Amino acid sequence: MNVVPRNIMTDTLVSSADFRGAMRHLTGGVSVITAGRGKDITGMTVTSVTSLSVDPPTLLVSINRDASSFPLIRRHGAFGVNILNADQLDVAERFAGKGGLKGADRFAGAQWVTGVSGVPLLVGALSAVDCEVEEIVERHSHGIVIGRVRDIRNSTRTAALAYWHGQYVAVDQNEDAAKLTDVSIPAGGRRRI
Amino acid sequence: MNVVPRNIMTDTLVSSADFRGAMRHLTGGVSVITAGRGKDITGMTVTSVTSLSVDPPTLLVSINRDASSFPLIRRHGAFGVNILNADQLDVAERFAGKGGLKGADRFAGAQWVTGVSGVPLLVGALSAVDCEVEEIVERHSHGIVIGRVRDIRNSTRTAALAYWHGQYVAVDQNEDAAKLTDVSIPAGGRRRI
Repeated sequence: MNVVPRNIMTDTLVSSADFRGAMRHLTGGVSVITAGRGKDITGMTVTSVTSLSVDPPTLLVSINRDASSFPLIRRHGAFGVNILNADQLDVAERFAGKGGLKGADRFAGAQWVTGVSGVPLLVGALSAVDCEVEEIVERHSHGIVIGRVRDIRNSTRTAALAYWHGQYVAVDQNEDAAKLTDVSIPAGGRRRI
Repeated sequence: MNVVPRNIMTDTLVSSADFRGAMRHLTGGVSVITAGRGKDITGMTVTSVTSLSVDPPTLLVSINRDASSFPLIRRHGAFGVNILNADQLDVAERFAGKGGLKGADRFAGAQWVTGVSGVPLLVGALSAVDCEVEEIVERHSHGIVIGRVRDIRNSTRTAALAYWHGQYVAVDQNEDAAKLTDVSIPAGGRRRI
């Protein structure tokens, strides 16, 4: 770990409200994080998944340490990342706590399999990624969970579910390709994965 | 830092190609990270920005340690996060290295101001966030850069630029609201920010 030796001002001119407002501009792919084993399972809807390194295959997810998923991820050392398609809005809502659903009750109404790490993986997710916890870096309210990818289950590509400005949106390549030039970020610039 | 005491298998059944394929399903908001001062500036297009905590306002970005931006971020202890709108595809391409552009040459053709931290901020970005480096956690090929937000410049909301399956897409709330129910993740479930 490389700590940059600077004096961070403890106060800031930016309010939490201003920060939330800025982050609403950032489009987030919607995933459901799953954790636990057997009946002691839970999960949560997040937009904080990003890839970290390709070799070894690792990804990141930031999770509020007060979330019920956090202790289960830590205890079992594993979690699932289920990237949702646009038809899985109901799953996103259940795992965001709609109707006060908690724990295993959130899993009703969808089909699940148990991954190699023991966590539930969503059948029909665009991609269901089975991760072993490599490290949890706890900072402020959140834990930055680094996951080593152990297994991947892909489905047929359909429109993805994203979240932007407090609203779910469907991201569909075919439709949007008409509006934007079909270009790829060249390999050298694809720093993310 | 909380290191989970597990034995991570050094080998994996998941290839880099499989991992890249899975991560292509994940929609990413497109931002340009800027770094440096004066003429010694550079930047890069990323989809790896997520918020970390609201109090204090902090965000994360994972950056390849081989990227030219990385040493500048570390040296100056600051970076800008410029969340692009759908009309800024040309900026995204320049900062992804289209045409072999490097360093200060990437900044041509757009208007910039200098933020309080000294980094260039893009005029007209959906949001331009000025960050001081709080910490850099180096893992595998990447540095997980934690930024403390010092200042925010917002523009009028227009469609956002996102990246999905190797293609830029426009995310527009008005258009997609017709397809998906207009629901918000309840406050308790919005773990991300």
